[in-house]
Amino acid sequence: MSYELLNRLRTPQDLHNLTDAELESLCGEIRTFLVDHISRTGGHLASNLGIVELSVAIALEFDTARDRILYDVGHQSYVHKLLSGRRDGFDTLRSFGGMSGFPRPWESEHDAFVAGHASNSISAALGMARARRLMGDDYHIVPVIGDASLAGGMAMEALNDVGHTQEPLIVILNDNAMAISPSVGALAEHLSRIRLHPAYFRLKTQAHKLVSERFGAFLHRVKRRIKGLIIPGTFIENMGITYLGPVDGHDLPRLRQILRFAKEQTQPVLIHCITTKGKGYSHSENRPEKYHGIVEFDIESGQTLKKNKRGFSDTFGETLTSLAREDERICAVTAAMPAGTGLIGFSQTFPHRFFDVGIAEQHAVTMAAGMAHRGLRPVCAIYSTFLQRAYDQIIHDVAIDPHRLILAVDRAGLVGADGETHQGVFDATFLSSIPGMTLYSPASCDELSGILTRVLRTDGGPVAIRYPRGGDGLYTDDRSGTPVSVIRDGSDVTLLCYGIMVNQALKAAEALEKKGISARIVKLFTLKPLPDLQAAALCTDKIVLVEDCVPTGSIGTQLLAAFLRQGFVPRIAHLTTGEQFLPCGSVQELYDHCGIGADAIAGAAERLIHERSDV
Amino acid sequence: MSYELLNRLRTPQDLHNLTDAELESLCGEIRTFLVDHISRTGGHLASNLGIVELSVAIALEFDTARDRILYDVGHQSYVHKLLSGRRDGFDTLRSFGGMSGFPRPWESEHDAFVAGHASNSISAALGMARARRLMGDDYHIVPVIGDASLAGGMAMEALNDVGHTQEPLIVILNDNAMAISPSVGALAEHLSRIRLHPAYFRLKTQAHKLVSERFGAFLHRVKRRIKGLIIPGTFIENMGITYLGPVDGHDLPRLRQILRFAKEQTQPVLIHCITTKGKGYSHSENRPEKYHGIVEFDIESGQTLKKNKRGFSDTFGETLTSLAREDERICAVTAAMPAGTGLIGFSQTFPHRFFDVGIAEQHAVTMAAGMAHRGLRPVCAIYSTFLQRAYDQIIHDVAIDPHRLILAVDRAGLVGADGETHQGVFDATFLSSIPGMTLYSPASCDELSGILTRVLRTDGGPVAIRYPRGGDGLYTDDRSGTPVSVIRDGSDVTLLCYGIMVNQALKAAEALEKKGISARIVKLFTLKPLPDLQAAALCTDKIVLVEDCVPTGSIGTQLLAAFLRQGFVPRIAHLTTGEQFLPCGSVQELYDHCGIGADAIAGAAERLIHERSDV
Repeated sequence: MSYELLNRLRTPQDLHNLTDAELESLCGEIRTFLVDHISRTGGHLASNLGIVELSVAIALEFDTARDRILYDVGHQSYVHKLLSGRRDGFDTLRSFGGMSGFPRPWESEHDAFVAGHASNSISAALGMARARRLMGDDYHIVPVIGDASLAGGMAMEALNDVGHTQEPLIVILNDNAMAISPSVGALAEHLSRIRLHPAYFRLKTQAHKLVSERFGAFLHRVKRRIKGLIIPGTFIENMGITYLGPVDGHDLPRLRQILRFAKEQTQPVLIHCITTKGKGYSHSENRPEKYHGIVEFDIESGQTLKKNKRGFSDTFGETLTSLAREDERICAVTAAMPAGTGLIGFSQTFPHRFFDVGIAEQHAVTMAAGMAHRGLRPVCAIYSTFLQRAYDQIIHDVAIDPHRLILAVDRAGLVGADGETHQGVFDATFLSSIPGMTLYSPASCDELSGILTRVLRTDGGPVAIRYPRGGDGLYTDDRSGTPVSVIRDGSDVTLLCYGIMVNQALKAAEALEKKGISARIVKLFTLKPLPDLQAAALCTDKIVLVEDCVPTGSIGTQLLAAFLRQGFVPRIAHLTTGEQFLPCGSVQELYDHCGIGADAIAGAAERLIHERSDV
Repeated sequence: MSYELLNRLRTPQDLHNLTDAELESLCGEIRTFLVDHISRTGGHLASNLGIVELSVAIALEFDTARDRILYDVGHQSYVHKLLSGRRDGFDTLRSFGGMSGFPRPWESEHDAFVAGHASNSISAALGMARARRLMGDDYHIVPVIGDASLAGGMAMEALNDVGHTQEPLIVILNDNAMAISPSVGALAEHLSRIRLHPAYFRLKTQAHKLVSERFGAFLHRVKRRIKGLIIPGTFIENMGITYLGPVDGHDLPRLRQILRFAKEQTQPVLIHCITTKGKGYSHSENRPEKYHGIVEFDIESGQTLKKNKRGFSDTFGETLTSLAREDERICAVTAAMPAGTGLIGFSQTFPHRFFDVGIAEQHAVTMAAGMAHRGLRPVCAIYSTFLQRAYDQIIHDVAIDPHRLILAVDRAGLVGADGETHQGVFDATFLSSIPGMTLYSPASCDELSGILTRVLRTDGGPVAIRYPRGGDGLYTDDRSGTPVSVIRDGSDVTLLCYGIMVNQALKAAEALEKKGISARIVKLFTLKPLPDLQAAALCTDKIVLVEDCVPTGSIGTQLLAAFLRQGFVPRIAHLTTGEQFLPCGSVQELYDHCGIGADAIAGAAERLIHERSDV
C-alpha cells in the first residue's frame, strides 16, 4: 500500500500544506489505511470510515492539542488518532501495551477526555467551558457525538444545561442514522425528518456558493442563510442551542466552512452532520453493523477470518427464545445491543415482545420493572459495564418493591480489547449490595441456560445473572442446580472461584498436579445470597480465592468476612483484578497482568504450601 | 376544624356525588386539612397545595385502584392518598410504622409504583403500557411529573421511547416552574416561553366554551381547537407526543374536560398543567421552597416550631465559602439541592462559581470532572441516595483519569422520615469499590470542616466525603488528621465504628460502664484506602462493629476480611442496617429497628462478654 500523502504528515499542522484536491485524495488514503490495518488487527471500522472527512476538517480547523475535541463513545476516534501523530499505534491497536481503540488522555495530549460509555461528552465539555471562562482561557471545545448517543439521558441533561447557560460550545452531531444498530427513538425520527426535509436538499445545492463566500462582513448574511434553510422549531433550537445544518459530512470544503463559522459564534451551536457509516468500503457500507466492531477480515471478500464459536450471548438468546415459546409473558429488553447480547433471533421470532430502547440503560431497567409490575416476565440484557448506569434504578425501581425481573449481565468480568472503560469488574460488588437481589454466576453456557430456565419458570424477586464475553473454556458442565460445587477433589490446597474463572483454576490444578500438589476446586454458582461455605466443604486450610473483579466489597471479600464470622481461619491468597483499571489486551493477557490467571493461581497455591513447610 | 365534605368521602367513588360547587369547596377543605396536619407532623406542603385540583380531577376521571397513576418523585401524592382512603394515615405521616410520605404500592392498591427519586415515572408507565397491550388489558396509565423531573435524563430517555413506540399514555406535566427551588435549564425556559405565549391566554378565555361542549361527535373539532391554540414546534411535539395545553391546573372543570379528552386518545399525549406551588396558603405561596419539605410550624405566623441547629450541611457550605475566598479555583456544583446541601450562602457569595444543574446527577458529576480537567477545583454536593444515579460517571469520568474532584456526599446513612427510597445506605459500598477513590467519613462538623480544608488545599485524585443529615451528637472533636482514632479507652470489648455512629457507640459505652463493662471505642475516619487496623489498636478480642449501611460489601465486611488476612480472629458482632429497605421513622427509631442503636450495641457487647464466660 502506498500512502503518498499520509507519509507527508508528521504533525497535524502539515495538513495545511495540502491542496484541496490533495486533501480529498488524503481521505481516500485514510480509508485504505483503515481497511488495511483493521483487517489485520480487528477493531471499529464502519464508524471510522464514516467520519474521515469530518475528522480531517476538525484537524484542519482546530488545534487539536490545544482546543479540546471530545469524541463521544470514542470508537470513531481512529482518524483523529492517525492525524495526531499516532500512525504507528495502529500496528498495536487494542493489543496489550498497544494503542487504545478509544480516546485516552494519558496516550496523547490530543485526547481531551476519557471515552467509552456513551453520552458523556457534552457534560465534560460544558465543565471545560466553565473552566475556560473562570480561568480566562481561550480555546475551542468541541464534543463530537453520534445520533444514538445524543438520545442518552445524560446527553439530554447536558444539553439542558448548555442551552440554559449559553456557554459557547461547538457540538458536532455525527448523524449516521445508526450508532451500532439503526437508531431507535423519537429523537432519531425527528432527525430523520430533518434529513428528509426539502431544506436539506436546498442546502446541498447552495453549499458551493456558500463556500466561495468570504467571512467577516458576510457572516450575518451567511448565518441568516444557514438558519433560514433549516426547519423551524427543531428539538435543538427548543433547547436554546443554535442549530447549524444539516450538512453533508463527506463534503470537506463545506465542513470546513461551517466549522469556521461555528468558531466565530459566542453562543453554543450544534452542527448537524449527515454521514454514511462504513463509507468507502462497499462491504461495510452495505452492512455497517457487522463492521462496527470487527475481528480480522479478508479485505476482498469482507469475510471475517476468525469464526466466533457459540458463546454465552448466543446461548442466552437461544435459551430465551425457546423459553418464550412456552411462556407468553417473557419479553426481552436491551439498550442498543441487540446483536451483542445475542437477541437478534429473539427479536425476529417475537418482534412484539422485543424492546430495544436505545442507549438508555436507566430507562431500560425501569421500563422492564414497569412490565414486571403488570404481569410480564421481562429479561433485561445489558453489558456489565453499561449496567453501572442503572445502579440506582436497580435499587429504587427493581429491588424496593420486588417482582420477578431478570437482569442478564453480559460481558461480566474482563472483556479484553476495549480496555479501561469496558471491563465488567464492578457488577458482582454493586449487584450484591442490593437487598433482595439474587445473583448467579454461571461458568458454562449450559449453566447459563440452566439458570435462565429455572428463574423464568419460577416466581420470586429480581435476579441478576452475570456471564462473560466469549464461550466455554475447559469447564462445560452444568451445576446450576446447587449454590456451591466441588469441581475437582484435592487435599493440599483449595482453589475457590466462581464463573469463568473456573477455567483458570482447572489449568492451575493441572499444573500443580505435575508438581505433586493436589488442588481441590470449589466453585460458587450463587453469589447472593452468599452460600454458607463451611470449612468441611473447602477441605483444606489453604485457599486461593480468585475472581475477575475489583477486590473492595467483592464476593471474595464477603467470603473472607464470612469465614471470620464462622471462626474459620484458613491461609488465604485472594487474587483479584486489583485497585486499578485494566487496559486493552487479550483476556488471558489481562488475567496474567493482574495476577488472576492460571499461572498466578498455581504460583499463589505453591507459596501457600511452602509457607507452611517453612513453619 | 370541620370537614363537612371530606367527611362524606368514604371511597374515591363518593367524589362523584358532589356537585361542581361542592367540589370547589372540597378543594378548600383539602387545603385546610393539609395545612392543619402538616403543621403538626411536618412533611411536604407546598407541592401538595399546588396539586389539589389536579389530584381531585384525576380521582374523578380515573379509577385510581384500577388505572395506574404514577406520581413522579411522589412527595406530591398527599391529596391522592387522602382521596384514596388514607385520611387516618395523616396522623402518623412519615412516622415509624405510619403512613409514608411517598407512593408505596404495599400501602395501597392506589399507589402504582415506588417513587422517591425523580424522573422514573414515564419509564415505569411505558413498561406498564407494554404489558397492558401484550396482556390484552384495558386501563389508563398516567404518570404525573413535575417540570424539574421532566428534565432529568431518565425522563428524556423514556419520552424518546414513548414518542417512538406510540404506546398510549397520558403524561401529566405538573408545571409549577420549580421543583424544590426554581427550575433551571433550557427546558424550563422553553416551558416558560409557552406559559408566556399569547396562546395560553387565548386558551384560558376559551376554556368555558370548551367545557360546555359535548364529546363524541365533537371530538375532532375540540382536538383541532386545542391543538390549534398551542405553539407549534414545541419540544414535546418534536418528541412525537401529542401536546395538550397549557391548561390552568387550578381550574377543576377545565382539568376534568382535558382529562376526558386525553382518555379518548389512542396515542401518547402530554397535558401541560400550570400550577402554583403552595397555592392557597399565603406563607407557602410566597416562599414555596421553604414549605417544600417542612418541620412542624405555626399556621398563623408560618414560623417553624423546631429550630434547626447548625448541622453538617451548614458546616459544609460555610467551610466551602471560606475556602473559596482563598482559592479562586474552587467551584460548587449541585443537582437541584442548593438549600439542602447548605450552598445558598456560597451561591450568593460566588454566583459565578456556583452551578445548580437541576435534577441531573449524571451530568453534575461529569460536568464537574470536565472542570477538574481544566484546572478548577470542583466540589460536587449531592445526597447519598441520589448519587447512586451517578455511579457509572464516578467510575468512568472521575476515576479512570483521576483529577482532584470532591464529592460531598450529604445525607449519608439513615435520613429518617423519607423512608425506603432515601436512606443513604449504599454509598460506602459503591464508592469504596472504585479504584483510586479516597473516602472519608467525618463524625462531627469539625471533622467535616477539617477534611474539606485539607483536601482542597492539597493535590491528588478524587475524594468522597460522606456525612449525615443533621448535626453533631455527643462527639464533637476533630480527629480528621488520622485514619483511625481511639475515642475511648477500655479493656473488655471494642466498639468499632465510623462517622455519626460514634455517638451510638459513646452512649453504649456509658451504658456498659454502668454494668461494669469497660468498652473501648475505635473510630475510622478514612474508609478507603482502608486503614491497616492491627489487633493492638483494637486491644480486645471482642469487637462490636457497627455501621449505618447495608452489610454486603460494606466497610465492616472489608474490615473483617482484612482481619482474616492478618490472621487476627476476634469474636465479632457485626451490626448493619441489614438486608432490607428501611421505612420512615426518626433516625433513632430506625437505628433501634435495625439493631444498630446504642442499646443494640450494648446488648451485642454484653452477649460477646457472656459467651466467653460460658466457655
